[in-house]
Amino acid sequence: MKELLKLFERIIQRVNINLRELHYDVTPYVSEMIRLDQVIKFYAFYGITPNHPLNLQFRHSSLAGSYFLGKCRTTNSILYKSDIRGDELKKKEDIVHFNGHDIRITKDETIEIEDSILIKTLVHNYSHDPETLEKFFITNTVSAQYANIHGSPTDGSFLGPFATVDLTTMCDCVIGAFSYIQAGEISHLNIDPGTVWVRVPGVCNFVYRYPLEPLSQYIFFEQGRPPQGLLLDFVEDRKDAFQRIFEVVNLPPSIKVPSSASLDRFAVVRPKTHIGENVLVAQRAYLQNSWLGAGANAQENCYIINSRLKGNNVTAHGAKIIEAELESNVFVGFNSFLHGRPSHRLKIGQDCIIMPHTIIDIKKPLSIPDGQLVWGLITNEEDLAANSMSLEEFAKIDGRHSQGAMLFEGSGAAFVNAFRARIHHILEANGAFFDGVDNRGHAQRNQKISFNTIQPYPEGDMVGLYPTIVIQP
Amino acid sequence: MKELLKLFERIIQRVNINLRELHYDVTPYVSEMIRLDQVIKFYAFYGITPNHPLNLQFRHSSLAGSYFLGKCRTTNSILYKSDIRGDELKKKEDIVHFNGHDIRITKDETIEIEDSILIKTLVHNYSHDPETLEKFFITNTVSAQYANIHGSPTDGSFLGPFATVDLTTMCDCVIGAFSYIQAGEISHLNIDPGTVWVRVPGVCNFVYRYPLEPLSQYIFFEQGRPPQGLLLDFVEDRKDAFQRIFEVVNLPPSIKVPSSASLDRFAVVRPKTHIGENVLVAQRAYLQNSWLGAGANAQENCYIINSRLKGNNVTAHGAKIIEAELESNVFVGFNSFLHGRPSHRLKIGQDCIIMPHTIIDIKKPLSIPDGQLVWGLITNEEDLAANSMSLEEFAKIDGRHSQGAMLFEGSGAAFVNAFRARIHHILEANGAFFDGVDNRGHAQRNQKISFNTIQPYPEGDMVGLYPTIVIQP
Repeated sequence: MKELLKLFERIIQRVNINLRELHYDVTPYVSEMIRLDQVIKFYAFYGITPNHPLNLQFRHSSLAGSYFLGKCRTTNSILYKSDIRGDELKKKEDIVHFNGHDIRITKDETIEIEDSILIKTLVHNYSHDPETLEKFFITNTVSAQYANIHGSPTDGSFLGPFATVDLTTMCDCVIGAFSYIQAGEISHLNIDPGTVWVRVPGVCNFVYRYPLEPLSQYIFFEQGRPPQGLLLDFVEDRKDAFQRIFEVVNLPPSIKVPSSASLDRFAVVRPKTHIGENVLVAQRAYLQNSWLGAGANAQENCYIINSRLKGNNVTAHGAKIIEAELESNVFVGFNSFLHGRPSHRLKIGQDCIIMPHTIIDIKKPLSIPDGQLVWGLITNEEDLAANSMSLEEFAKIDGRHSQGAMLFEGSGAAFVNAFRARIHHILEANGAFFDGVDNRGHAQRNQKISFNTIQPYPEGDMVGLYPTIVIQP
Repeated sequence: MKELLKLFERIIQRVNINLRELHYDVTPYVSEMIRLDQVIKFYAFYGITPNHPLNLQFRHSSLAGSYFLGKCRTTNSILYKSDIRGDELKKKEDIVHFNGHDIRITKDETIEIEDSILIKTLVHNYSHDPETLEKFFITNTVSAQYANIHGSPTDGSFLGPFATVDLTTMCDCVIGAFSYIQAGEISHLNIDPGTVWVRVPGVCNFVYRYPLEPLSQYIFFEQGRPPQGLLLDFVEDRKDAFQRIFEVVNLPPSIKVPSSASLDRFAVVRPKTHIGENVLVAQRAYLQNSWLGAGANAQENCYIINSRLKGNNVTAHGAKIIEAELESNVFVGFNSFLHGRPSHRLKIGQDCIIMPHTIIDIKKPLSIPDGQLVWGLITNEEDLAANSMSLEEFAKIDGRHSQGAMLFEGSGAAFVNAFRARIHHILEANGAFFDGVDNRGHAQRNQKISFNTIQPYPEGDMVGLYPTIVIQP
């Protein structure tokens, strides 16, 4: 384990150097977060299809349990059960429109992960930074369990557990547990846990801060201890179900899915689950006794249990939906935790937008009307009134609006429109609008993937590290 | 399947061009030998250990079900369930002694397979050709089921089913079914089926020819039909047992083995099997209700069923031992078929050498005394008398000796000594003489291997072909 340990220490040092201005030392957080003796036991794997650009290069890295799709370079990094999806990489000669500029892509975009430790982290490449269109980088960075680095080039940063950085270029920042950041470009910030921040520079700014005491029941993270709380317990309780599907090379399909839908071979599907037309179920999704209507999608690390989703629903990375009924076109953002009960189910009306990192955890029945924007912590009707607003009303805001722990500044219409456009893009990219001929998306293109396992050196100084592996067309 | 089909046709063409002087067209043989629609369904895999030189490069090839260990390059080739073992590759700065020359190896030896189709073929790199010490090549070659290319650089050749080429450099040759050739260097030869030929140029020459009619019951191969016969039936009947072990990624060990022994994770072990100290069981070996004494080895594609091997026994690639009792130091050569019956077992005395490609198939009990050299087809006592000789007597031959269908010329002593030296080398290399500290061999070094699966493109023009994969330290 000599080389693996050296690599681990070297990365920690690099991150600390980047975070020195914030006086932040990641060592006491990280030391309890990852057990290197566990890491050496796992294999990693990658997918091959003719539809995704192929150029995987793994050098001097440890990749335990991680999955790769599309172009990716990983050098001197430790990726533990991370999910690196490069299926929306820009291609050479693509044109990117930005503020009136038409920027031509000069070479195929690549994900480059260097000198980083990513633990159970989802990386998705749909990036928008006009300064780095050909390279999606994650360097000198540590991210904790169930963090999402989503279209967010990242350097010298630390992401706490369940933190999400979305469409944001980030340099030398600390992102607290369960914080969601979509802010364009940030540097040298230390973001408190439970911050939900959406900023379009010059257009609008949305900030919500979780009350820390109630949040700590869901996720609590301090020095010298692994992360704790209900969110982690929930995931840990369902860990075993994934074990079998990772143990075998070829798995027979568990249920029938329409030819226009895609059920990933590394998803868990328990009885009785229904999958409609154009549905996308990504790997590490967990479905149980649920109904997914046409065009719904269940993204990586999401859980849908005892629930009914009418159709064209987005369940984003890490979102959890339990004992709930969702009308059509409901969007549930990253890492949200929607927890109804068998005797008092959660109902969500059509066209609702559940913001990323929303927690709805109810002891009595709760119905959210059609067309609401919902955020923050909600345990009853009063919380809902404080932490939601109809999208129609929200779009009328022009200036400053504060409500409970939420502060908004700028154009409500721009905020709502941007959200709606993005949801439309997600549905489109995932193949929800496929008509049998046109509008193919991930649901149709990801149906046939060859999954290939790779393993590290089994003993000696290099144990746990992978040999150099280069995979090209 | 477009590209795979093109590749298949291109290789056939190249082999035919090489064999034009022999007026040999491999097309009608090959067309029934391999089903390309089957080929696309399998994954391939490779092993990683810190003890074997790592440099695998697969380019524009189809590798269905094949296994690789050690340095290997495969380009424009189709390998179907083949086994490529590079665990005795020469290393840079090694010295090879040859006829008084000390030849220094200038770079690490590599196996290079180009423009070839190998079907269920075992390739082992222990080559001796002083002209090509750094490169072990197999080019423009087709080999059929259960052929062995053993330390034999090969160009422009065709090997029939169960053919073995051993320590021989071969150019533009056809090797008939079940023929065994160990002849130093050969070119432009068309070898009849069932030929057993061992030649040390200037020293000795051993030739045995199987009677074709009885041989055809065991193996029969003609144009336009797949190979047939008892040998194929025997293997096919046991195919299912391998299925499960290839389906799962990690398999718990089936039986307890001593710490000095090695049982490959891709071997089949059925009850009740005993594995002694320093035993090596290679992948795709099949053991059932058998006792393997200390230092015995069971090589790739061998079958040992209801038998007892006392110790330091070599069961070479593809050899089959059923209902037999072998005393210590018995050598059973490539593809031999030793078939006793429950009521009349086959007994083989110590220090016997069963030549490669020997068939012993008895209807009454048969005992072979200690120290015999045995070859050819034996079904009863009379056959045994015709096709065996004590090693002591054999060593006395000096000149010409013919016996039954066997003809020997040259020095019997040199022949016997060379055989014994080689058996000693095999035991040594396999770790039979390990004393807990010194004399480590494959049995000790192969205990921990990471097996990694790789798969071809699952659809599109490239279906069945693998992307370029490069694996280096």
